[in-house]
Amino acid sequence: MTDMTHFQPRHFNWRMEGDVAVVSLDRPDRKNPLTFESYAELRDMFRALPECNDVKAVVFASNGGNFCSGGDVHDIIGPLIDKDMKALLAFTRLTGDLVKSMVACGKPVIAAVDGVCVGAGAIIAMASDLRLATVNAKTAFLFTRVGLAGCDMGACAILPRIIGQGRAAELLYTGRSMSAEEGEKWGFYNRIVDADTLESDAIVLAQLIAAGPNFGHMMTKTMLVQEWNMGIEQAIEAEAQAQALCMQTADFKRAYDAFVAREKPVFKGD
Amino acid sequence: MTDMTHFQPRHFNWRMEGDVAVVSLDRPDRKNPLTFESYAELRDMFRALPECNDVKAVVFASNGGNFCSGGDVHDIIGPLIDKDMKALLAFTRLTGDLVKSMVACGKPVIAAVDGVCVGAGAIIAMASDLRLATVNAKTAFLFTRVGLAGCDMGACAILPRIIGQGRAAELLYTGRSMSAEEGEKWGFYNRIVDADTLESDAIVLAQLIAAGPNFGHMMTKTMLVQEWNMGIEQAIEAEAQAQALCMQTADFKRAYDAFVAREKPVFKGD
Amino acid sequence: MTDMTHFQPRHFNWRMEGDVAVVSLDRPDRKNPLTFESYAELRDMFRALPECNDVKAVVFASNGGNFCSGGDVHDIIGPLIDKDMKALLAFTRLTGDLVKSMVACGKPVIAAVDGVCVGAGAIIAMASDLRLATVNAKTAFLFTRVGLAGCDMGACAILPRIIGQGRAAELLYTGRSMSAEEGEKWGFYNRIVDADTLESDAIVLAQLIAAGPNFGHMMTKTMLVQEWNMGIEQAIEAEAQAQALCMQTADFKRAYDAFVAREKPVFKGD
Repeated sequence: MTDMTHFQPRHFNWRMEGDVAVVSLDRPDRKNPLTFESYAELRDMFRALPECNDVKAVVFASNGGNFCSGGDVHDIIGPLIDKDMKALLAFTRLTGDLVKSMVACGKPVIAAVDGVCVGAGAIIAMASDLRLATVNAKTAFLFTRVGLAGCDMGACAILPRIIGQGRAAELLYTGRSMSAEEGEKWGFYNRIVDADTLESDAIVLAQLIAAGPNFGHMMTKTMLVQEWNMGIEQAIEAEAQAQALCMQTADFKRAYDAFVAREKPVFKGD
Repeated sequence: MTDMTHFQPRHFNWRMEGDVAVVSLDRPDRKNPLTFESYAELRDMFRALPECNDVKAVVFASNGGNFCSGGDVHDIIGPLIDKDMKALLAFTRLTGDLVKSMVACGKPVIAAVDGVCVGAGAIIAMASDLRLATVNAKTAFLFTRVGLAGCDMGACAILPRIIGQGRAAELLYTGRSMSAEEGEKWGFYNRIVDADTLESDAIVLAQLIAAGPNFGHMMTKTMLVQEWNMGIEQAIEAEAQAQALCMQTADFKRAYDAFVAREKPVFKGD
Repeated sequence: MTDMTHFQPRHFNWRMEGDVAVVSLDRPDRKNPLTFESYAELRDMFRALPECNDVKAVVFASNGGNFCSGGDVHDIIGPLIDKDMKALLAFTRLTGDLVKSMVACGKPVIAAVDGVCVGAGAIIAMASDLRLATVNAKTAFLFTRVGLAGCDMGACAILPRIIGQGRAAELLYTGRSMSAEEGEKWGFYNRIVDADTLESDAIVLAQLIAAGPNFGHMMTKTMLVQEWNMGIEQAIEAEAQAQALCMQTADFKRAYDAFVAREKPVFKGD
């Protein structure tokens, strides 16, 4: 098991709030762009999470009034221009691996989005499980603005499942900004909160979830991905197996015992 | 062919309103929990429907101001605590079989939801084709509250397709109640109606559908499941075949003849 | 490469507005029904588009206050009544091929919907990438009204992904009209605009998209279909490959160069 409570990443911020890890990017003066280094270190962090028992949920927070401005134009886009196909694919796989590592990390991830949330930043929000925003959140899948396609880091697969195929198509073709109000109406944002309380609201929500049955949450997260392209019959059988597993956890008995004793259950994640 | 007009189930209520079967659970004093027996009998009933011509649609109604409180804590959850894996899987498959039988029953199912609609009750509403609710409907996929995962009876596959991946994730991780207003806004509930007219409104809607081409409806229901995880090209070919079948029904000719005669078509389901 | 700027179809209207083709049906006195001939000619036109560089986006417009009344009752439904299965399947495949050709045409298609938009007309709107409507748009998947099933031309696969499974089920079972307001709320329509400016608004939007990186747009459209039933991991790898391809286009470099020069990029589609 990995202990990440004292984790000290080099390319992003990290702290624990109880069982909840709070992550944010660390260049607020430039609206928190990603670099090759932060992509890789974030990916490695999410890859380590499944074996890390002391982190039960993650808040991906904003910093300095912005979430993330995407891949840095100077640090990333410039160097990409002259690369050969092998190097380009290595880069697009690196970015895709960040999304893969997020959806496979076994812990609920809550994005707390203020201000600029564009490009790979919008993808990080999309790849999170839940999303809170302030009214200032400006979320843009702006890949077409930089001459590329909307199919970046899983956007053509995941975004339509969150907001519907027609709205996703508009955002991906035009690269236009989705307002916070649209995002809430369309189901991208679960809730709009005050900028002052954005991070604390996200942490409270994450702690609420973290106080639940964490083996069960891991299984929920696993099955949301696992059943993505299953038939209904197969999905139901897969859930029968997954839930039977959960019925052998101590948390299931804890909940029952608490109910009988008219108490609030205290879950321990096993 | 099975005649179910005089069906007398032991563990739930059943009556016919014209061509429409009205089903409800029968323990209103306890907000209509499910038991091993009612799970099995409901499953068997839905399994019998494909061969039953006299039932053309189903209303799954509320009873005493509530829809269903899910698996009974004393009758179901208690006994599950000490079961071995074989018995647990037998149970989770029984519950999953109820959903499978609902989606395969060949008749549109309309849930009429008042009051408590939680756990397996929320799943029954989700597995229906259409859903009406009163403002008092409280719908919760509360499996995490009892120490389990959100992946129960197909919820991780079906719920995201109804309300979107982000809203489904919130409900499944937190187990929180979805209000009727949220349910309508998110596409879970097709309409909010008065408590006084909930059941009759559902019956009217069911009868309206039942008066349509029932072979066609069966095919619509079949293909909504069949195409769940097909590619677009394959889905279009599958529909070309399915619709060509429907064009050989007498109902297709009846509709055309009625149009030419400027009359309202009377469909007979063949 | 096909030059379609001077294309003169026999069974529908066609004109160019810059890089944007504006298509509409041509029997406004009868609310623009489809015929065997217009189905086939539309299919052939969309099939020609991938190799046609001078058309960068398509507006499927209304004509005389209506979009399309679907398959003509006299010209299509009547003749179908007595056909054998081979001929029926040939027809349903013809209609399905129109949808297949639209989703495979490589260019964004924007439907501009006023008035009647029913049956195969509703399908054409559904199979477009984006949709604008006036408040008068009445959109009905009314196949059950003519004695058939809702599974027509891909509706059971595509419609639920746009508006959600529950709302799609209601429209497909009842055949009822979806109002413009519902359509906008549910994500079917991207925006409601004035009838006076419907066509010009759609053209402006299409030109905006057409001014973007068209190789990228083609890839976005391709991947939205390609990833329809992939798993998340597979979709992310597919996008890594697709986006790496796009990074070798000149448009990607044009965008970067323009950014560095603080200019607006001029994309050329290669």
